[in-house]
Amino acid sequence: MAIELYWGSGSPFAWRAMLTLELKGLAYESKLLEFSKGEHKKPEYLQLNPRGKVPTLKDGHYVLSESLAIMSYLDRKYPEPPLFGKTPEETGLIWRVLLECEYYVVSTGHKVVRPIFFGKGLDNVEEIQGAAKTLRDELKMMDARLTGAQWLVGDRISAADIGVFPLVQLLARAAGKEAAQPLKLGILPLAQTFPNVSRWVQRIEDLPNYQRTYPPHWRE
Amino acid sequence: MAIELYWGSGSPFAWRAMLTLELKGLAYESKLLEFSKGEHKKPEYLQLNPRGKVPTLKDGHYVLSESLAIMSYLDRKYPEPPLFGKTPEETGLIWRVLLECEYYVVSTGHKVVRPIFFGKGLDNVEEIQGAAKTLRDELKMMDARLTGAQWLVGDRISAADIGVFPLVQLLARAAGKEAAQPLKLGILPLAQTFPNVSRWVQRIEDLPNYQRTYPPHWRE
Repeated sequence: MAIELYWGSGSPFAWRAMLTLELKGLAYESKLLEFSKGEHKKPEYLQLNPRGKVPTLKDGHYVLSESLAIMSYLDRKYPEPPLFGKTPEETGLIWRVLLECEYYVVSTGHKVVRPIFFGKGLDNVEEIQGAAKTLRDELKMMDARLTGAQWLVGDRISAADIGVFPLVQLLARAAGKEAAQPLKLGILPLAQTFPNVSRWVQRIEDLPNYQRTYPPHWRE
Repeated sequence: MAIELYWGSGSPFAWRAMLTLELKGLAYESKLLEFSKGEHKKPEYLQLNPRGKVPTLKDGHYVLSESLAIMSYLDRKYPEPPLFGKTPEETGLIWRVLLECEYYVVSTGHKVVRPIFFGKGLDNVEEIQGAAKTLRDELKMMDARLTGAQWLVGDRISAADIGVFPLVQLLARAAGKEAAQPLKLGILPLAQTFPNVSRWVQRIEDLPNYQRTYPPHWRE
């Protein structure tokens, strides 16, 4: 039975799962949910994912939610190329990077990205700029980690890169919006502010099949 | 070289690492940091863990932070008994439980636990009770998951149990404090509110060496 991926355009979490499937060279059926139509909150979908979040992976009868869990499942089920490290030491560092992203980037990122995309709270300049400062600190650490290195952990692309990348892309996209300009977020142009991160982004964008994972509504 | 664990009494995250070491039967040197003396913010420690958090694991020259990363490292380095599943399907579900704990329990838990332990914000009854409602919903799902099952995923103890358990213990401890009584959190007595969770807690408390992991200042 085919793998099915339920996802939404622009969700960084769904993007992780899709990049993993592409890197593994796995065939899958794309099930694009339209957030604007509330398709992720409809009863059929809630049966697969009671929290109404994306992504959800279906592999035969097996159903799984939570993007990082999906990545760990896919890596164990379809081991090539390995995305969670060749040694225990790499495995530990990859998870460290992923979990630090979840704790220190995701919720802080929401505080910057959501007002810009949805307008609500855009006048709360102080909070947005405070969150942007935290994100710049995280990007700075990442830039340092990428000095002389191609990838976040080890000498090949790993789950750490795939997990963090969609969050960086989402932030860069938000920072480039007209509504973001008065906020002076200090994030763009990435090539100047965080040059190693910028080259790393380019490296991932150059991967085969990257374009197939690009959020469709971002092209509009 | 010996394994060293830097931890703090009562930190649920450090507790995860210690339970993992005990379950694996690994010898380790305990490095207890006194939060009240700010030992986790001193320069020597910040060299090991720049964020000043616990736990940090040192295994020879290898240094690792983030509790779930430490668990994944230990499981790969010292595979017996396996804590991240016997099959890809179990691995995925274990990570799902762990990540759902991080997203839906940890930060909501802070909103209940911190005011009770530290007094600050204790008058914000509405926010605390709202958070408690969310936590009860999560405990209810967990109780359902444990219907007829001994462990959260699969037929043996796994990282899912070890990862979630310290958060449940912390919450139960907070809910039992005198300061919590006027808040009517609806969490205790666990044996009545969430009987399967209560039996699961007991099952973990009955593990060999459990007492060695019990937060020392909780005994006082």
